[in-house]
Amino acid sequence: MVREKPDRAGVEAAARRIAGEVVRTPLLPVEIGGVWLWVKAECLQRGGSFKLRGAANRLIQLSDEERGRGVVAFSSGNHGLGTALAARKLGMSAIIVMPSDAPAVKRDAILAAGARIVEMNRATESREEIGARLAEETGGTLVPSFDDIDIIEGQGSVGVEIEHQLGQAPDKVIVPCGGGGLSGGIALALPDSEIVIVEPSGWDDMTRSLERGSIVPVPDDAPVTRCDALQTKLVSPLTFGALRDAGARGVAVTEDEIAAAMAFAARQLRIVAEPGGAVALAAALAGKTGPLTERTVIVVSGGNVDPLVYAEILRAQAAEAPRSS
Amino acid sequence: MVREKPDRAGVEAAARRIAGEVVRTPLLPVEIGGVWLWVKAECLQRGGSFKLRGAANRLIQLSDEERGRGVVAFSSGNHGLGTALAARKLGMSAIIVMPSDAPAVKRDAILAAGARIVEMNRATESREEIGARLAEETGGTLVPSFDDIDIIEGQGSVGVEIEHQLGQAPDKVIVPCGGGGLSGGIALALPDSEIVIVEPSGWDDMTRSLERGSIVPVPDDAPVTRCDALQTKLVSPLTFGALRDAGARGVAVTEDEIAAAMAFAARQLRIVAEPGGAVALAAALAGKTGPLTERTVIVVSGGNVDPLVYAEILRAQAAEAPRSS
Repeated sequence: MVREKPDRAGVEAAARRIAGEVVRTPLLPVEIGGVWLWVKAECLQRGGSFKLRGAANRLIQLSDEERGRGVVAFSSGNHGLGTALAARKLGMSAIIVMPSDAPAVKRDAILAAGARIVEMNRATESREEIGARLAEETGGTLVPSFDDIDIIEGQGSVGVEIEHQLGQAPDKVIVPCGGGGLSGGIALALPDSEIVIVEPSGWDDMTRSLERGSIVPVPDDAPVTRCDALQTKLVSPLTFGALRDAGARGVAVTEDEIAAAMAFAARQLRIVAEPGGAVALAAALAGKTGPLTERTVIVVSGGNVDPLVYAEILRAQAAEAPRSS
Repeated sequence: MVREKPDRAGVEAAARRIAGEVVRTPLLPVEIGGVWLWVKAECLQRGGSFKLRGAANRLIQLSDEERGRGVVAFSSGNHGLGTALAARKLGMSAIIVMPSDAPAVKRDAILAAGARIVEMNRATESREEIGARLAEETGGTLVPSFDDIDIIEGQGSVGVEIEHQLGQAPDKVIVPCGGGGLSGGIALALPDSEIVIVEPSGWDDMTRSLERGSIVPVPDDAPVTRCDALQTKLVSPLTFGALRDAGARGVAVTEDEIAAAMAFAARQLRIVAEPGGAVALAAALAGKTGPLTERTVIVVSGGNVDPLVYAEILRAQAAEAPRSS
């Protein structure tokens, strides 16, 4: 039977399917505005982001014949790395199509995982088209980064873990959103929780789509953002639908708020958050996400940031901060 | 019955006693020299180091009357913070005696936890004497940083968790050593595992004590080290005895090796390690700890590092690293 959209049972099945492949990332306690709440530190996942979850859920279900032909993924980095790691674990070859301006830290990790990289120009070429052509040429399976039932259900395993670790469903989950695979999957996993998705300013297409009730793209003149992982120009009906049906709403954060959240994560949580991974924390710290409770969970979704860029952000933030002593 | 030394049963009891107070920190997979092994990320503990464990184990066992009189601790930072957090949780007042050159990040966190700080000069005053005097004046309980059965057993809960998480005892545990509370406790928890303790060069008094078979102090002309958390001039018979009886051995690492390990931790594990917390990882990366296996566990014991110092270390390491692309 062909399934038309992801659902909660699928998320729960995915969580069981991939449990042996993924790190059960911790819920870390953190104080914001006098309230102790929780950060789901998915930057501590294998490969440094939640992306392994969806890729593993997809690849595990391939037949032996499909496995033999390998996989193709297009990605700015984290999805490529998640796919490369899942492929290596299953003995499959992997080709990752990446924009040439992707962070070196992500390219290096993908190469280290044994995958082949095909570079493309983000401005003039379509990675979707290149990916589809490579899949056709090699016979390999194309692994989309979010517009896929298995991928969304795999990412949703984050929500299943949160409920287990908290001992109950959270009041609210605040989660970064690019294409919506992670946030859509979590919304399916936790139907009784309030879902707040967070995007960088100017790239808040899911937020505006949810407000409008239909999908709107990112405008062509969107501003520069450090959030390479969240530069998705158009979300998919699958992810949009999951968030819309959950009554999710969105907020946007500035680059300064993101940098402050990265420094906060290092100092108060001792975790490395990449810009796109830190947007939900940034929104909570900026007071943009409504009341916080002790059953609120903020997802930090990735930690793959260029070391020089990271050092410079931390230095600038430390130099700005008032010295208390 | 007065107990003379810490033991395995005591460590297991401590682990049960404090389970509700501490974060069950994750075992994170990491590849070193082609082998996938594990990092116990205790920098993700509440307060940013393992120190909460020992303090909680000590304070929970105080009588209501003792709790009412508060606690006094002397500490370069992490033990003070662990004690302050445990005291706050139990509704107790806390006075922390700290050297005036302790990192601001640690002082700030202790103040934020509601404790009072008394500063002293590391070169000319004895924090032990000041702590003892304050304890006498206030009637408060003195909480030593390592020379105490309850403290050692509490820190040993790290070893109990490692065995549970790994599903079996590790082959080898590589662990930072200051006074030896953490390493001694782990040695008691894991009697069948090889224990390798790691110290900064010139501060390797436990290493030399284990080689010699009796306690030797750090010489007065010990070099400057960034490892504020490991500047212990003399270990205790309790910690030395636990490590000696376990057949533990030690190695020393340089400041450069420590900085490289901090950068590796940020990039490959997405965790913030402070200098003293990174020494065991540094030793493993430098090939100083003998064969590594997939059942080797490296403890990263703390992540409280001054933000400007941290940014500068990451910047220098990133600038030095060969660019692979």
